[in-house]
This record gives sequence, C-alpha cells and structure tokens, in this order.
Amino acid sequence: MQNPLLSEFELKVFAGPGNPELAYAVIEQLGVPAGKMIYRQFPDGESYVRFEESVRGTDAYIIQPTSPPVDTNLMALLAAIDALRRASARRITPVIPYYGYARQEKRALPREPIMAKLVADMLVAAGAHRIMCLDLHADAIQGFFNIPLDHLTAVNLFIDYFASELQPLLPEVVVVSPDEGRVKKVRQVAQALQVELAVGYKHRPDTLSPEVTHLAGNVNNKIPIIVEDMITTGSSILQAVEALLSHGCRRQIYVAATHGVLVGSAVARICDRPEIAALIVTDSVALPAEKHHPKLKVLSVANLFAEAIRRANSNESITSLFD
Amino acid sequence: MQNPLLSEFELKVFAGPGNPELAYAVIEQLGVPAGKMIYRQFPDGESYVRFEESVRGTDAYIIQPTSPPVDTNLMALLAAIDALRRASARRITPVIPYYGYARQEKRALPREPIMAKLVADMLVAAGAHRIMCLDLHADAIQGFFNIPLDHLTAVNLFIDYFASELQPLLPEVVVVSPDEGRVKKVRQVAQALQVELAVGYKHRPDTLSPEVTHLAGNVNNKIPIIVEDMITTGSSILQAVEALLSHGCRRQIYVAATHGVLVGSAVARICDRPEIAALIVTDSVALPAEKHHPKLKVLSVANLFAEAIRRANSNESITSLFD
Amino acid sequence: MQNPLLSEFELKVFAGPGNPELAYAVIEQLGVPAGKMIYRQFPDGESYVRFEESVRGTDAYIIQPTSPPVDTNLMALLAAIDALRRASARRITPVIPYYGYARQEKRALPREPIMAKLVADMLVAAGAHRIMCLDLHADAIQGFFNIPLDHLTAVNLFIDYFASELQPLLPEVVVVSPDEGRVKKVRQVAQALQVELAVGYKHRPDTLSPEVTHLAGNVNNKIPIIVEDMITTGSSILQAVEALLSHGCRRQIYVAATHGVLVGSAVARICDRPEIAALIVTDSVALPAEKHHPKLKVLSVANLFAEAIRRANSNESITSLFD
Amino acid sequence: MQNPLLSEFELKVFAGPGNPELAYAVIEQLGVPAGKMIYRQFPDGESYVRFEESVRGTDAYIIQPTSPPVDTNLMALLAAIDALRRASARRITPVIPYYGYARQEKRALPREPIMAKLVADMLVAAGAHRIMCLDLHADAIQGFFNIPLDHLTAVNLFIDYFASELQPLLPEVVVVSPDEGRVKKVRQVAQALQVELAVGYKHRPDTLSPEVTHLAGNVNNKIPIIVEDMITTGSSILQAVEALLSHGCRRQIYVAATHGVLVGSAVARICDRPEIAALIVTDSVALPAEKHHPKLKVLSVANLFAEAIRRANSNESITSLFD
Amino acid sequence: MQNPLLSEFELKVFAGPGNPELAYAVIEQLGVPAGKMIYRQFPDGESYVRFEESVRGTDAYIIQPTSPPVDTNLMALLAAIDALRRASARRITPVIPYYGYARQEKRALPREPIMAKLVADMLVAAGAHRIMCLDLHADAIQGFFNIPLDHLTAVNLFIDYFASELQPLLPEVVVVSPDEGRVKKVRQVAQALQVELAVGYKHRPDTLSPEVTHLAGNVNNKIPIIVEDMITTGSSILQAVEALLSHGCRRQIYVAATHGVLVGSAVARICDRPEIAALIVTDSVALPAEKHHPKLKVLSVANLFAEAIRRANSNESITSLFD
Amino acid sequence: MQNPLLSEFELKVFAGPGNPELAYAVIEQLGVPAGKMIYRQFPDGESYVRFEESVRGTDAYIIQPTSPPVDTNLMALLAAIDALRRASARRITPVIPYYGYARQEKRALPREPIMAKLVADMLVAAGAHRIMCLDLHADAIQGFFNIPLDHLTAVNLFIDYFASELQPLLPEVVVVSPDEGRVKKVRQVAQALQVELAVGYKHRPDTLSPEVTHLAGNVNNKIPIIVEDMITTGSSILQAVEALLSHGCRRQIYVAATHGVLVGSAVARICDRPEIAALIVTDSVALPAEKHHPKLKVLSVANLFAEAIRRANSNESITSLFD
Repeated sequence: MQNPLLSEFELKVFAGPGNPELAYAVIEQLGVPAGKMIYRQFPDGESYVRFEESVRGTDAYIIQPTSPPVDTNLMALLAAIDALRRASARRITPVIPYYGYARQEKRALPREPIMAKLVADMLVAAGAHRIMCLDLHADAIQGFFNIPLDHLTAVNLFIDYFASELQPLLPEVVVVSPDEGRVKKVRQVAQALQVELAVGYKHRPDTLSPEVTHLAGNVNNKIPIIVEDMITTGSSILQAVEALLSHGCRRQIYVAATHGVLVGSAVARICDRPEIAALIVTDSVALPAEKHHPKLKVLSVANLFAEAIRRANSNESITSLFD
Repeated sequence: MQNPLLSEFELKVFAGPGNPELAYAVIEQLGVPAGKMIYRQFPDGESYVRFEESVRGTDAYIIQPTSPPVDTNLMALLAAIDALRRASARRITPVIPYYGYARQEKRALPREPIMAKLVADMLVAAGAHRIMCLDLHADAIQGFFNIPLDHLTAVNLFIDYFASELQPLLPEVVVVSPDEGRVKKVRQVAQALQVELAVGYKHRPDTLSPEVTHLAGNVNNKIPIIVEDMITTGSSILQAVEALLSHGCRRQIYVAATHGVLVGSAVARICDRPEIAALIVTDSVALPAEKHHPKLKVLSVANLFAEAIRRANSNESITSLFD
Repeated sequence: MQNPLLSEFELKVFAGPGNPELAYAVIEQLGVPAGKMIYRQFPDGESYVRFEESVRGTDAYIIQPTSPPVDTNLMALLAAIDALRRASARRITPVIPYYGYARQEKRALPREPIMAKLVADMLVAAGAHRIMCLDLHADAIQGFFNIPLDHLTAVNLFIDYFASELQPLLPEVVVVSPDEGRVKKVRQVAQALQVELAVGYKHRPDTLSPEVTHLAGNVNNKIPIIVEDMITTGSSILQAVEALLSHGCRRQIYVAATHGVLVGSAVARICDRPEIAALIVTDSVALPAEKHHPKLKVLSVANLFAEAIRRANSNESITSLFD
Repeated sequence: MQNPLLSEFELKVFAGPGNPELAYAVIEQLGVPAGKMIYRQFPDGESYVRFEESVRGTDAYIIQPTSPPVDTNLMALLAAIDALRRASARRITPVIPYYGYARQEKRALPREPIMAKLVADMLVAAGAHRIMCLDLHADAIQGFFNIPLDHLTAVNLFIDYFASELQPLLPEVVVVSPDEGRVKKVRQVAQALQVELAVGYKHRPDTLSPEVTHLAGNVNNKIPIIVEDMITTGSSILQAVEALLSHGCRRQIYVAATHGVLVGSAVARICDRPEIAALIVTDSVALPAEKHHPKLKVLSVANLFAEAIRRANSNESITSLFD
Repeated sequence: MQNPLLSEFELKVFAGPGNPELAYAVIEQLGVPAGKMIYRQFPDGESYVRFEESVRGTDAYIIQPTSPPVDTNLMALLAAIDALRRASARRITPVIPYYGYARQEKRALPREPIMAKLVADMLVAAGAHRIMCLDLHADAIQGFFNIPLDHLTAVNLFIDYFASELQPLLPEVVVVSPDEGRVKKVRQVAQALQVELAVGYKHRPDTLSPEVTHLAGNVNNKIPIIVEDMITTGSSILQAVEALLSHGCRRQIYVAATHGVLVGSAVARICDRPEIAALIVTDSVALPAEKHHPKLKVLSVANLFAEAIRRANSNESITSLFD
Repeated sequence: MQNPLLSEFELKVFAGPGNPELAYAVIEQLGVPAGKMIYRQFPDGESYVRFEESVRGTDAYIIQPTSPPVDTNLMALLAAIDALRRASARRITPVIPYYGYARQEKRALPREPIMAKLVADMLVAAGAHRIMCLDLHADAIQGFFNIPLDHLTAVNLFIDYFASELQPLLPEVVVVSPDEGRVKKVRQVAQALQVELAVGYKHRPDTLSPEVTHLAGNVNNKIPIIVEDMITTGSSILQAVEALLSHGCRRQIYVAATHGVLVGSAVARICDRPEIAALIVTDSVALPAEKHHPKLKVLSVANLFAEAIRRANSNESITSLFD
C-alpha cells in the first residue's frame, strides 16, 4: 500500500566523479533522469563542482565512493554537499558505496588520528542530512554519526552467487574468515549456505618465533571461500591462501570481498595463482579496464542502491531489504 | 627533568558516589586532600551535587564509574561535571574506571540506539574537557569523542599477577579468548607470558543444529586463563568453561576480567565450580562485601589511576605508562 | 477548515516505560495503533530500546514522564529518541507529562549544577526536535530549550472539577497558594472559580525565632483549596494545612496538584488527616495500585495530550486549546 | 596564602560606552591602567570598536551594562567580544552590571520570543567565555548559559545602608516586596535587618471587580522599605506606595532597587511624592545629571565589581564575597 | 508545469518594523493576507514581538531591513525569528532588503571585529533557516552563512530604468564605478546597456602629496552614470562627481545605488548640485517623506521580493529570475 | 620587557609533508628541535600521521601549505590536527603559508560551493584553535573563521627587494595591479616605494567586441612591477604583460607574487619571455628543482613565520610586526 503522504520530496540523483559507471547504473535502474552536475579539476588540481539544474526543495542523492584517489574523491563529495545545501536542497544524502579511511577507526598507537571519525565530522559539517553506505569496515563507524545512516550489505549478493555457482559442491565448501575481526559477517554467509566456518587468527607465542596463522575449523579437502570486506594489495588474502593450503584445502579457492580496491597489481597477484578459482568483488569501487581478468567476477550493487534510494525517498523501510 | 611550566593548574580530585573506596585510594596515593563534594539523593531519587570548596581555575578530576545503578551513577557524574563547569573549573576530567553502556556501541538490529555514543555526547554536553577510562569494551568508543581520551589498561596487572602466581606452571598454561571479539587484548597477555593462545568462536551451520563453541588452538591438558574485559552474569564465562573442559583442559581454570560487574549470584556461579581455580578482577567496579569469595581476587587500579592523573596534571606522557 | 497541506507526516505514538497506562490512554484516544517499541533492562540495569516497525519519515511521539526512578526513565527516553533519530524519523517529540529535575532550575547555593538545563541539553543532544510537557515547575525552563516547547496545563481540569464538585459551596471557598512561588497559576484557578485567593509565605525575622508561615488573605471559616504543581513527600502541604487551620479555616480542605509524585507514604500522610476532604492529582505520574486511597482522586490528562498531539501533527494551534 | 600558579593571565579591563563612569571607577579601584578601546558610531549609527593595544593571551574584562539604548549597548558589547576573540584574548568576560531584556525570560503569551535567552546565546556566539552580572531580574537566566556566570548582588549594600541610616528606627521598619515574584531576595534584607516582611500580591476575584493589591503582613504605623531589583517607569512602585498608605503605613517610605533604569520622569514621579523619604539605587545604570534629585541616593557597585574581577583573575572564590 | 509536491508549506509573510511600506507592497503583490505580528518598544526601549496567529508548520517570511536604527531593527528581526521558532514555524526566512554592518566584513585594522559575520551568526543562532537579501555590499558575506542564502540584485531595475530613460543618449553614456571595489557589478550594467565603463581608484604616491582619484576610461564629454551599492552620507559620491567633472564629463550626471541609506542631509547634498541629473535608489531602505526630492527617483523592489518569495515557497528556481 | 607569565606553554613545531624545506627553515630559525611527526601514505593513497613524542599540554604548530596536491595536503593537515587534539595538545595552530581553494570564496554562479568556507569549517572541526596564514587571496576569508587568525603578509619582503634591487631606477618604476580585485595590497607596495600605480581592468562593451584590458595610469616608458598574490598557470600575468607592452612600457617587466603555485610550464611561459626581467615569489609553496630558472627569484618567508610563531607563543603582538 502506497502512502500518498510519503514521497512529497522530488527525487534527484547525481553521479559524482568517483564511480560514474555505478552511479549511472543506479540512476538508470531508478528510471529518473541523471541529475546535471558538473565536476572538473582546475589546472592546480582544485576540485570544482556546480549543479546545472535547480535542486531547491529536492531529495538529493550524490553517489560517490571515496575510493582512490581518496582525498580528491572526498573533497569532491564535500564540495557537492556544500553546493546542494547552499542551493536549498531539502535533504542531502551522500551515497558512499566505499567509505575511505574506514580502517583508521581507532587509535592503534598513541597520537594517531581517528580518520574515519574525521571524515564523518566533515560530511556532517558540509551539510549531509543522511548517509547511505555499504559494508563498512567497522560497524562502530555508525556511531561516528548522529545523523541517520543506512548501512547496506552485499552479503546477499555473495550468498546468491555461491549458492548458484557451487550448488552441487556445497557440502564440500567451507567459508573462511581470514582473521578474527570480521567473523560476524562471514558467519552470516556460512549460515546462509549451511556450510562450516573456519576462522584464522595470528599468534606468535614468543618474540623469537615467527607469527603463525592458525586456522580454527576443518578445511582439509574442502573448497574454501575466503570472505573479506575489502581487498587492497591482496597480501593478507595471500597469507590466508597459504594457511589454507598448508591445512590441506583443495586447490580451488574462492575469494569474495565487497570492496575491490585492488591497488597496483593486486588482481594479478591473486588471480594468477593457479589455486585461486575466482575472485569476486562488487562494483562499489570503479575497476579500470586494465585490471580486468578472466578469474575476476564483478557483482553489481546498482540494483541494491537503486532500491535503497527508492525506499528512502518514499519513506519505506530499508532494513526490510535484508530480512 | 621537570618542566616548571607544566603544572600551572591546581589539582583537585573528587570522589563520586559510584566507587568511593577506589576514589579515596587514588586520592591517598596522589597525596592530595580529598576534594569536598556532597552527593545525595532527594526522597524522589533525584541526584543532588554540590562542591563545598572553590574549584575556580583548577584541574578537576571526578572519579566515578558508571557501574550499576548505571543511570544514577551517570547522572551523578553529569551533575558533578555541570557544577564544576559553572563554578569555573578550568579543566574537567571525568575519570570513568568502568564505562557503562559500552556494549551498546553499534546497532546490531535495526532501530536500536547507540547508547555508548549517547553517553559520550552527554559527557561532552555537560562540560567534560577530557576523559580518562579503563579497558573500554570497544576501542571504537574512542572515536565517539572528539575531546582527548586517555585509555588506560589493566592488562599489565593481570600479566604481573599470573607471571608471579603461576610462575613454574607457565609452560602448561594457555590463554583463552572466549570469543573472537577481543583477541587483540588477549593476545597481548599470551605474548607477555610467552604462552599459547586459544580462541573460541560460535557457529551453527544450519538452523536445526545447536550452536557450538569451537575452540581454535590446543587446550588439551593445559591450564587455561580465560581473559575477558568484563563479567556481568557470568553466563558466557561458563559456556567457555564447558567448551574448555570438553576439549580436555585441566580442571584448574583461571578467569580474569578487568570489570567485575558481577550482578546477582554471578560470583557464586563462577567460583563455586570446582574447576575454577580463581576469578581475578580489578576494583574498577565496587564490590560489596557480600560478594566476596575465597576464590575471588581483586587487583587494585588505584595506583594506575593515581599515576595517570599525576601525569595528566603535570603534562607528562601517559601512554609511556604502558610501554 | 482542514488545510490539505497540513498533515503530510505520518503520526506514530509510542509508549515509554514510565507511565504506560497514560500512554495507552492517549493512543486510544487518538485512534491510532500503538507504536511497536520494545523496552527492557539488561541484568545489570542498562536500558535497551528497539522499535519494531519502520519509523522512517514519520512524526514520532514518545510518551514518557521522567518520574521516579527518574534517571532510568530519563535514559530510556533518551535511548528512544536516539533510536528514532538513527532510524530516520522525520520529527521526534518527547511527550514528558512530568519533567524530573525541574526543581533544580537555578543555583540556590554556590557550585550546584542546574539539572533542569542539563536535562534539556540532553534531550536536544539525543535528537529531540520538539518537546511537549505539562505544568513545568518553573516557567523559565521553556528558555532552556531553543526548540519548540508546547507547555500544556492541567489547570482547566482542576477548575472544571471544583466548579462541579463544590458548586453550591463556591462562595465559601478560598484558593490557597502555599508559597509565593506559584501565585500566578493559582490565581488563575481563583479567578476562574471567581473566589478569593490566599497566599502563604514564610519568614523568620531573626535567627532565634522559628520560621512562620504567614497567610495573606482571609481564610477564616472558609473551605480552602490548596493548589500546587507537584507533591513529593507532602511535607510542605502539611505545613500549609497547619497554617490554614491555625487561621481558622474549615476542616474541609482540598488539595490539588498536577503531579502526584507522592513518594513513600505521602498519600497516607495527607489523606489520613481528617481535615483533608480530598487530594486531587492527574495521571501525569503513574500511581501504583497500593497508593490508591478513597480520598485520592485522579484526573486524567490523556485527552489533553491526545488533542495536543493531534493538533501538533496536523499543524493546528495548540495554545488555542487553553483560550 | 597566595597560590603562585593562580594569576598567570595578564589582567586587562576595558570600559564600554554604556556606563564609562562606573567602568573607570572599577578600573581605578583595581589599580590597573584602563584598557585602550575605541568606540564610536558611524553616521548611520553602526557601532565601531577597536582595541588599541595588544590583548593577546590576556584575561580581558569589558564593563558594559546593556541599559538603554539597550540594543546599541548590546551590539557594542558583542562587537567588543568578537574583536577580543579574533585578537587572541585568552579569556573574555563581559561584565554586565545591568542585563537588558531580563524581564522577557519566559513566554507569558503564546508566540512571544524569550529575549533573555536570545541575549545569552548571542553573548556566547560572539565569544564570551564567562559572564559577570548583578542582581538578575530572574534567577533562571543563570541556566540560559552553560558558561560560568558570576552572579553578584547589591543586597549587602542596601542592608548596610539601611542598618546605618535607620539604626534607631529599625524596630518600626517593615521590608516590603511589592509583588510575590521576588520575595526571596527581599526576605534576605528583612532577615539581615531583623525586621518584619510584608508581601504584596494582586488579585481580582471576578472580571467585574477592579484588581486589588493585597498586602500580607502588618504595615500599620510602620516605616516601609520597598525593595525591588529594578525601577523603570516607577508605576508599580507607586501602586505599592498606594497600597501601603491605604494599609496605614507611616508617611516615610523608602524605595530601594539595584537597577535605576528610571526612564523619562520616573525619578520625579517617585521622589516628588512627599511620602517618599528616599529612593536608593546603585550605579549599575548610568544616571545622567538631569535626573539627580535630593531624595535620590546612588550607592556604587564599583568596589564590588573590582573585587570580583580581582578574584576571578586570581582564581579566588567569588561566592565567598557574599558569605 | 506545477509540481503538486512543491508547495506543501503554508506561506505566511510578516512585516517587520524596519520598512513596513515595502513589506506590505510585497505582501499585496503576493496576494496573501498580511501576517499578524505585533511589534512595539517598551518605555525603556526594549523590543517586544508577538505573533497573533498560529504559525505552526508554516513557511514564514519576515521582511525587515536592518537599516538605521540598525541595532534596533536587527534585534526586532532576531526577536521575531526566535518567536517563530518557538512557535513551531517549519521554515523561517528573514528577508533582509538591506543588510546592516555589511561594510565591516573584514578586519581593515588589527583588533577590529567582523560585524557582518557576527550578524550572520546571530541570525542563525536565533533560528533562521534561510536568508534572502539584496545586493550585499560584499559577496563574501554569502560564505558567512552555511544556510542557504538567496542573493537578489536590483541591477536589472537600473538597467531597465536607464535603457528607457536615456534611450537616445546611450551612445554618449559611460557607466562609472567610483572605486575599484565593485567593478564586477558595475560592469554588468555597462554591458547590458552596451556602453563604456570607467573606473575610479585612489592613490597617493607619497605621503606628502594629496590623495588623487584617478579615472581609468574615457569620460570626456560623456554622460556618466555612477553606480554604487549604497549611499550613506554621499561624500564618496561627491568625490566621484568632482573627479568626473575634472575629467571633462558632461554636467548631466546620474547616480544609482541599490540602498539609499542617505543619512542626515545626504539627499540634499547630492541632489542640490546642478550637475546631478537624478539620484536613483530602491525602496530597500525606507525613505521618510522629508527626504523626498524632485531629482530623487525610487524604484521598488517589491515585485522582485514577491516573486522570489513565491518561488522559494513553491521550490522553483530563484536564480533563473536573473538569467 | 618580558612578562614572566606569557610563555607558559611549551612550544612544539612540526613539519607537514607539504613544504618540509620551509618548515625546517622556520624551525631552525626558532632554535627549537623539530617536532617528531611521521607522515606517510598507504598503498591506496590514504594519509597516515603519528606524533612520535608527547604533545600533552604543548603549544603545537604544524606548518603545512595546502598547495598541490591540494586535497592530499589538506587531509594530511586535518589528520595532524585531529591527532594533536586527541593527544592533549593544549593549543593547536595550523600554519598555512598557502591556503588552497582560496579563490572559491564566493559563489560566482548559482549552485556552486564556497570551498574556502568549507576548508575553514573543516580546520575548525578537526580541532584547530588558531590559524596562521599568509596573503590570503580574499580578505573576507578571515570572517570564515571565528577562531583567531593571524594574517601575515609578504608585502614588506617585496618592498625591500625592489627598494634595494631597483634603487636608482625607482623614479621610472610603476607598480601594476593586473586587475581591480587587489588594488589595496598593490597600492601598499607603490606607496612604500613612493612610485606611481597603474590598474588594469577588463571590459567588453558589447558581446560582439573582444574583451579589452584597460590600463588606468601611465605606464609609457616605465619599468612595470606587476604585483599579484598568486600565480598558477601564468595566463593572466601574460595578459597583463601584453597590455603593458601595448601601452608602451619598457621591455623590463618585473613580476612579483607571494604564492608561486606555478603549475606545469608556468615558470617557463613567463620567464622565457625576453621582456620579463625577473619573476619573484616566496617559498610559501614548495618549488621543485626542475622549475628553477635563472630569472626566478625566491624570497623566503621562514623568518617571518618564525618570528610570528615566537610572538604567538609568548603572547606578544604580531600585528606590530607589520607596522
């Protein structure tokens, strides 16, 4: 039942420069015209933003991951938010498929900053009214905001993918969390696929011994699916692969991560290994053509974001998307 | 070398009603007179605070854990902060040995609050300039504040205790993290004692099966030290005990936790088990006499807080306390 | 004339744990379904709140007096506000029939806090957009907020009650303000009933003499109605009763107060006196069954709050309720 | 005992344009050079302020009542605060002997502003760190600020004045509060002089009758001292005088008020009455020469403010001034 | 095409005391009833505001230039904003045809305030959600606000006026910016009229020489139109007139300025000069009857503001007004 | 006379990654040890900052221009500020020799952001207490801050340079402002050198004609010194050069600008022109070796910043530096 009171704000969706392909896919899915926003850089690298249509009184969404170049993408997003605010947009929602600086969310050593909080404060200072994001590296980032934050997850995409891709093999599959930090989300995948779970954790009993990656759970002769939230250089994935192999897993390893930041030769480092069956990421971060690889599979989060935006605009529940 | 410019603020330390025993031990250790603060409740339960000496221009510390009754202790703390601010204290530092509501630091389910952030915002709104606390349940709570937060840890107290208590038996000891959430701190204890680490994690591969506590790491015939940040009812400790026993550990289990909230009959539930060798907590939370138990050992954090306050007042490094 | 633009927000009303009976009466009167909100306390006393239906884009009201246990009720209210904000409620109005800590609204002695302001700041910090409350102990609390505050009054309920109850006796009635602090509201009752007014005030001309309650106005052989905003222990009411009796009033004294906090044996202390004809309060504070008394009459403010909420939701004037 | 750490801020005191005579008396009493501040108005009436000496790192006080012309004096004060803040003064204390708009401290009718709160917010927005003021019309204004507020009182000046002036007559004196709003402060005077208290209050039992000023307490054949916080037009004082006379007081009436705003012919209206023995005010508001009158006595608050500033600068207790 | 979602707020427009004539002209043009707002001053000069109709949920505009008496007009505006906020207006837009203190928008000398920023902060602190203003003295004032600011311009009125008034003479016209500070806006006029531009600037090569007003551009035998944003005393206009005459312009000089503050005898000083053909201002500042002059022409900005308010209320683009 | 109370904060100065050469020159000049701060970028480009010495209670300065790569340098600066704040630095002053985004300080077209304000808000949100900067592109940026801002200028360096370099030729020199926007600062140079001033401004009387750069003032047969605040690509400088040549200036043109941003081949484009005698900039922006040129002269602002920091730390006047 459609509540006639619910969608009184006109919806406008804008594509930031960080991942235009995803943004336009979301816009197309929504069936609205793409918002007219100019973005360019001056010769000295300063960002310039202007909206070329009225945004007065609208419910404005700007889709912009703060993936590398992270600072430039962040400033472009802040510039767009500030411009929307000054131009009288009624509600401004940065849609941030990948939230840069999320790993600096606490002080590991004395006298560090907490960058993820700083970014949160900047988004609010610029004028954001609400935030929409995807598989944040740390859940506590939610609490860095006092404005509403819709936290989407790509976990269901991975579950559906493996449920279909590995259907007959599922009894032989084990889902692997490469470290103890993200067991909760990884466990969700294992439970949905109704398979076993293995967890890696590192320990070095004395300073002379090397650090060892322990694996809790049985992976022997199993097909492992390593599940991560993000992959940057691929080093920790490769460590997990080594540990799995040394514990006797099959030479058919799947790697799944929401955010494929994949800097430098990360794709090749992972995919060129013969034991790797596939590397599955989403399009939360734009992947340049030169990084494509036959073993690299990209699942799109465009439909997910489109549906979340549609619901936010019409005041329907978003969490029910994930029930 | 003492910098003559460093301690220009007069130090005043006040004992809140939450744990006067600890507070007076800190004050005695500091060698300053106890600050004169009145606290009482009106017949309808409203808190009343008044400072009975001038605090103008001082560096004021109020020692108050927000342990049960959590809301009353929190309001008493906020009242004291507000009174200090209005009375022109120059710098106000709530010293919060136990930070209540720390476990509600993210939204596990939709439409929950984030209580740990709310508490942080309230402390700042009341006028706190800096925060001092101990073994926060979640590190990300640091980022809930933009004011400086000195995060002390009792880990060294436990390390020293076990290093001395179990000296000859150390090769047979294993340090156990009962779940995956706090491996980092627990690993610190294992590394300092130069012993092995075991980690528990729960999994239920399909909804028909019961949830199982897996244990990664070898505990067979070992003396386990379960390390936690806090114990409330003791239920999860007892689950860990069962798992350890079923994996063949020795019937000499140690349990260590910074915060002994220990509601109801928690002490008895744990200590009355014959396999439990000792339950070690700190005095961050006041322990009423009726909860004492021969197997319950309380390590005092008074010296730790006294030294941290002394350093904060004289602008010396606090993190170097934990090098 | 109904403005079609006025009620574009969907109305949701939630019952906090402070006074569910009143809350459900308001909800029933409004003819809306009761909002689904869970409230419970963990074993260590920490409050837990969750909304079990979408509140996105709604005009949400949470009915919760901060009566004893004041701190717990306040934290429950703040938790609910925070949860509503994070869940994207468009407008959040705490409806606070009784505002705890209202009597600490200024510093009577040096180095006290101003609790009523602290509570105001906390409500705003948690995310309240508007406040609805009833017969605040001090009018200046309005100025502690910069957000809109709808200040309802139960004065008309008392006027109607006495106009009907004491109809033939009205010429023999005198309305009494037991101290000088609230003459303005008490005068309203006297004027509406068209009867005389008497005011008590205390004075002790020198420190050796006892404090005397003076009574300005003639009460001799009159039926007094003592009007107060709140009764806690009843002590000051009993002082006023003594003063009235010593000035020759009839042994048929009525006591009326908006907020029946009535701690301990306050009801009995007042009602068991033979000179007391009746004690009339509202249901702004929940009255447990064991405090009921034949002479205790409870007037309901449910209709008043229901009508105020209905008007707030449909952008109609609320002050005109009291013309 | 002088704490060598206490006065590390250099004291600078500036005279605003609102009451230079008082300001220079305070400065002289303090024995510091008058701060160099320029104030003038442009031809179109805009205020201009500039400090002509460095204020970097200083403890700066600007003495400026916001007496008529209230808006101009307020803007001049705000301009000075803003200039001090931008010029790196370390601590900025507006000293406001008379706080304009204090009577608009709550909403008496719907849709009024709360001007006293607005003024408070403006002072803080401009950069004030602390406030010093005198006999605020409403105590709750303290709670309009979250910064420290030192609230001085001239009550002792009046007590000393009457104790000396009326010494032999004191047994015949009655102290009178002309309405119920300020009984608390007036009672202080009565208690200090060890004399009786009378309180006026107005009532009109039905709308056809005229409003009558009742007097509680015996004034017959007594010498009344009417005590008020401020006198503007004198109308309510004259009403009180009539009520006193009709209750048989002696034709020797004293009127005392901290703030002699005394607009238009107020001085003459009061002092020309033969029953008025004297009108006593302080110099919190500048009194132009043409308003002087033989019966008008002005007590200076210069010493009071000088001592309060001295103590604030050296971090000594100010409230102990009034013990 | 009218979007049915756009005008869901009820429009209310109120006339402040600063320029009621303009305000009522705007209201009449809009075809809405004039909002009922009371403004008066107490005998001591304090402003009093009350709204005499419900503003709950409305889109409220208050038209009030902060022209002389600038402080009084500013406080009246702030009072109205505060009252609207407390009375639950949904959106509050001060419409400020003339923004006082705009010339103090930076520090020209050390230890000055920045008054234009202070005024901005006060408007926001009082509760303004959006600002509407006209030909601000300095564009950077836009950046003093983080809330939306609609910056209207009267430039088109002047262009239309001269295009019609001087039609056949346009080839002989030169548009003159009397100093370098406002060339950009003046250039707009020149370009629209398709005529030449001249710019004045002052220089004094050494301290012994007098300051000279240079004129860049040819004015010889031309009809000059001096374009300014505001005229206060007229002194700088007269300096420009002298410079133009000494450079051989025709004795038919036009002076145009948006804001005719025109204090004292400014109108006569300018208009009584025989070389002045006409002085053209808008009605942004109220012009009392005694300042009227045959050569003084007032263009009304009422239609401009009415159209801008209509568009703001219906969420249509305002900048397109100036395309 | 040294006030013993003035320098109670310990001074620490840190070099950000934006211009380490300048920063270390400042530190050397101050005679303090360089503060230990780590800066590096992760493989994905995220900035990482850590302070490797205690900063508790210190007066901390971080020298960091936000020159290209502007966003990275800005985030590094914000990270350092946040880290200092969390590590209990008492006063944090970002020293920003070049303030990026300064040219986006107002909205030239609808729906643009105001980047210079956004940067100001971010600096304050991160925890800056004071700002120190140099020759801001727009003076109004001062008003974007409410915290103290020390605005240094390199004008004296240029005056001294030309007074010495062109001594005998000064009578033949003309100082040129290439557009009307910065006449005020350029005039200062002309006055100090006691030479004439010329000002350029652009105009296009109708849309068919080309835009012409007019020059006001005589440059014929003169040696021009073009004075600018910053040079990015050099295009507008070259336009000014053309205009000067076409007005008959000598083929010995000097170009002076505080900020040599000089992207791409800007240095060559300017210096390779035979008419250019010299290009003089300061080291506010780091100049890589490959941009050096025989005609390029760099004046150091290190002493200027060192002296300003010394005075700020010891609470001495900074503006007197420029008397």
